[in-house]
Amino acid sequence: MRVDLFIKNAMIYNSYFKTFTQGNAAVLDGRFLYIGPRGEDSFEADKVVDAEGRWMIPGLVDIHLHIESTMVTPETFSYGLIRNGVTTIVPEPHEMANVFGLPGVTEMIRASEHCVADMFYAIPSSVPATSMETSGGSIEIEHMDALLQSETIACLGEIMNYVDVINDPDCKTNRILQHIRANYPSLIIEGHVPKLLDLDLQRIIYAGIDSDHTHQSIEGMEERIAAGMFIEIQEKSMTEEVVGYLIEHEVSEHFCFVTDDVMPDSLQRRGHLNHIVRKAIGMGMTPEKAIYAATFTPARRMKLLDRGAIAPGKIADFSLLSDLNKLTIGQVYKRGSKVYDAQEEYKCTERRYAFPSYFYHSVQLPLLTEQDFAIRTEKQDGQYLGRVMTVKNGSTFTEEAHGEVEVRGGEVCWQESPYGLIATFERYGKTGSRAYGLIGGDTIRRGAIATTYSHDNHNLLVVGHSAADMMLAANEVIAGQGGFCVVEDGRVLASLRLPVGGILTEEPLEQTAAEVQRLREAMEALGYNHYNPIMSISTHSLPVSPALKITDFGLIDVNRGQVVPLLMDKE
Amino acid sequence: MRVDLFIKNAMIYNSYFKTFTQGNAAVLDGRFLYIGPRGEDSFEADKVVDAEGRWMIPGLVDIHLHIESTMVTPETFSYGLIRNGVTTIVPEPHEMANVFGLPGVTEMIRASEHCVADMFYAIPSSVPATSMETSGGSIEIEHMDALLQSETIACLGEIMNYVDVINDPDCKTNRILQHIRANYPSLIIEGHVPKLLDLDLQRIIYAGIDSDHTHQSIEGMEERIAAGMFIEIQEKSMTEEVVGYLIEHEVSEHFCFVTDDVMPDSLQRRGHLNHIVRKAIGMGMTPEKAIYAATFTPARRMKLLDRGAIAPGKIADFSLLSDLNKLTIGQVYKRGSKVYDAQEEYKCTERRYAFPSYFYHSVQLPLLTEQDFAIRTEKQDGQYLGRVMTVKNGSTFTEEAHGEVEVRGGEVCWQESPYGLIATFERYGKTGSRAYGLIGGDTIRRGAIATTYSHDNHNLLVVGHSAADMMLAANEVIAGQGGFCVVEDGRVLASLRLPVGGILTEEPLEQTAAEVQRLREAMEALGYNHYNPIMSISTHSLPVSPALKITDFGLIDVNRGQVVPLLMDKE
Repeated sequence: MRVDLFIKNAMIYNSYFKTFTQGNAAVLDGRFLYIGPRGEDSFEADKVVDAEGRWMIPGLVDIHLHIESTMVTPETFSYGLIRNGVTTIVPEPHEMANVFGLPGVTEMIRASEHCVADMFYAIPSSVPATSMETSGGSIEIEHMDALLQSETIACLGEIMNYVDVINDPDCKTNRILQHIRANYPSLIIEGHVPKLLDLDLQRIIYAGIDSDHTHQSIEGMEERIAAGMFIEIQEKSMTEEVVGYLIEHEVSEHFCFVTDDVMPDSLQRRGHLNHIVRKAIGMGMTPEKAIYAATFTPARRMKLLDRGAIAPGKIADFSLLSDLNKLTIGQVYKRGSKVYDAQEEYKCTERRYAFPSYFYHSVQLPLLTEQDFAIRTEKQDGQYLGRVMTVKNGSTFTEEAHGEVEVRGGEVCWQESPYGLIATFERYGKTGSRAYGLIGGDTIRRGAIATTYSHDNHNLLVVGHSAADMMLAANEVIAGQGGFCVVEDGRVLASLRLPVGGILTEEPLEQTAAEVQRLREAMEALGYNHYNPIMSISTHSLPVSPALKITDFGLIDVNRGQVVPLLMDKE
Repeated sequence: MRVDLFIKNAMIYNSYFKTFTQGNAAVLDGRFLYIGPRGEDSFEADKVVDAEGRWMIPGLVDIHLHIESTMVTPETFSYGLIRNGVTTIVPEPHEMANVFGLPGVTEMIRASEHCVADMFYAIPSSVPATSMETSGGSIEIEHMDALLQSETIACLGEIMNYVDVINDPDCKTNRILQHIRANYPSLIIEGHVPKLLDLDLQRIIYAGIDSDHTHQSIEGMEERIAAGMFIEIQEKSMTEEVVGYLIEHEVSEHFCFVTDDVMPDSLQRRGHLNHIVRKAIGMGMTPEKAIYAATFTPARRMKLLDRGAIAPGKIADFSLLSDLNKLTIGQVYKRGSKVYDAQEEYKCTERRYAFPSYFYHSVQLPLLTEQDFAIRTEKQDGQYLGRVMTVKNGSTFTEEAHGEVEVRGGEVCWQESPYGLIATFERYGKTGSRAYGLIGGDTIRRGAIATTYSHDNHNLLVVGHSAADMMLAANEVIAGQGGFCVVEDGRVLASLRLPVGGILTEEPLEQTAAEVQRLREAMEALGYNHYNPIMSISTHSLPVSPALKITDFGLIDVNRGQVVPLLMDKE
């Protein structure tokens, strides 16, 4: 019979027996028609590909990630995915929602519609994350209804506010959960429940949240699985003991791999979900088990039952590998068409999506002056103990330290202190509010960094040791309608423009990756002593991440969930 | 915290690790809240039940069955299910659809709405099964649309016409499949593909049909699983080799148990899906694996992700067993309320649903006379070879034999032949057509049987050796608006009234079971030599079941798919 594509002589992955079998595959209208020993005499194919004994695996499926972490638009992201064999993703546009509200979500969906990689969206469920910050937009129940009526939505994205879910029956998150369960009872609800155990964990599952992608321990993972949770393993969970547990126990049905956040230079250099699979194999997991967790179980979790396997009727997304253990990708096919070939030049053919013009004008701030980096106070002159946000290498959590600062003439003389200044400026033209703090620890020792890529509110955040450098860095970012700028002694060391909502660039992935690399090096040159300085500074404004953070409302004591003053009262 | 029900000291089945663990369970608002070691000090329960170490398993889930096979209404069926620990089913009202068309389906759904057992419906996909019979109704694409817009539908029911799906791109079934795939791409489509292998099997899966509940062989089952099919094991597939394969291979995710057709006396005497589970255990399957296949995988197959496990958030449907291997049910709970207790009198508390009045007047036939059992012919007088439907014990298939009969005065003198008469009368007031044949083999030797319970068209079918007995049996059935009647020498030996559509009774299960038992004995007393004479006679009219069958269109050569004359031309 006539088919479009016939792949012969491949070692084909079978998801149902988790094994490779030598055979051939026929594709018709973008879906597999036949897998087995029948040869070319059974099929009249428009195109025949001899796999020459190479491995054929399903397109990888990543069901938990944020495109904004890679700072690129969906079409650039799709380009980055495809050459890594990732053909389907479920992104949650949490950051774009914080900047633009509902249009931030719908525009990302629009931008994805013609991408080579399939993107099914998760509705951001926690925007804004707290009521202690001014964000550009919010996602309310009526927005969820609108999305669920009109868009291809895979799930409700990670519920971050698990503490309130347990303790406050009337909180916004519980109202969302009640609404979803009552009106869309079969909608998948994704979770974020670090360290939760026992009755609290089960109450979260009872509330309808039945997955977790946070850092796993053996005990926590075993409890989660036993209680019916689906585990999404991201790189930080891939400790020897966790991967060892997954290898030794029959839990293949209960977990998958996800990427969550991948930096542009990491996508360019290491890859995407394929990097995670490769790493799992390197840690001793069989390729058969690792591939299952990056194809079949994630697809099933999201009820994408038309993919995740090489079998009749399934969408013909697959890769041909020349080395199974290293996951060396030779070719990638999407719906039966070749979309990547390692032997050929790979260009981004994705059509560029034009966002609405206001998406390119989201930084509503006048240029700043040095005076904007003065901390005014009504305190009398004298020495005070101030709260110092203390950056710690190895974590995005900060600690709260207390250090001496002088107040003189109504100003906190931070430049004379051992600390830097951290300042944030509401940038949506809503309140014009701003806040200031002191910063120390493993951050920069000189110069300044400014960015609008500051989770989750994405206001303008500036860290520095000189008001002049801070002003310069901030104004570079404002003039560019968002991004990063690193300055030392009046000179721009590195910058990255992110003009779409102040958080995404439309430039090619290769260029962005190189700029991010330079940015990182510039931050390190200023003394930033952190494994991921970009992630570190981007989370100084995240008021759900302990311990002392800053928003335009002021310094936030995250553990107490409240705004606290910079200067402590004299005792 | 406050809960409704607290079960303590149970051996609780965990579906995720397929194991029993000692512990307690708390239920709130009909769903499990907590499973684990926490005791009464953690929960303030309205009701506490001490399980005394007994086994606690999820409510059983049967995803392929026809309520009409049990000849009772949904509420009586629910009553029969519950005491067997079956709490959720997916029935396909194939027979009611053949009698009434769309209302046959919607009325069954209505009748189920207030039942204790949850019933999610399969849309009959093959009504009528052929164009060689007059049925009461049909299910067309627009009916499917109506059902999918307004009713809780689990799936498209078994596609029976797999031969046409492969060979005739424009057949009704392919039009249905194209419509469903285009408009409801995530709808589950159930299959019926006996013996199919290789490319034909994969083409069926490619068409969207990805389950099979027919009789399985090892080879066929392995091919089906490898190609992504879900296997539904009914009792006739439970050969030693098939169950042995399921035990020895890691295929638990790929199969479940189903009942398909259960006679009323069998439901009364042996039970329901619990009987299948018990049988599997008796054949050497571990209880853990057998229970999994009657709870977790069937629920998941039908995307009923809110049940099939004892875990937080799942609907609290469960049974307490005093003997695990024998599956001895002590109590059954539905949504956390006790609905059956072996220690207490069990009465049917289901509310009786009133079908529309025309459902009780579906046999549109005048009373018959002896002349209605004469076979008129235009053949000249003489000896002819006639086709004889030959009943074979052990099967519902018949064979075609050829035997001598005399034609005299324009009539086939069947009463002088060694054969019986089989006659069918269109009974929906549509065409008034009728057909006659000869019958032999393992059927009755004397007397007569009449029934409207004749798959799939449910016209009046009469088999007998005396026109007088046949008339009496037929008129009893007509007067009772459907059912069965067995007559010998002018005396009614047994009868069963089925006044709802001519195929269901509203009488209690116990009474129906006893009447069916008497019916069976009466048929055997007349010489019917078959392991299931009721099933045997009910399928004489089924023109998709080989080899020689009869409809109001005439004798059907099933393998050739056409009407054939009773008398063969002289050579």
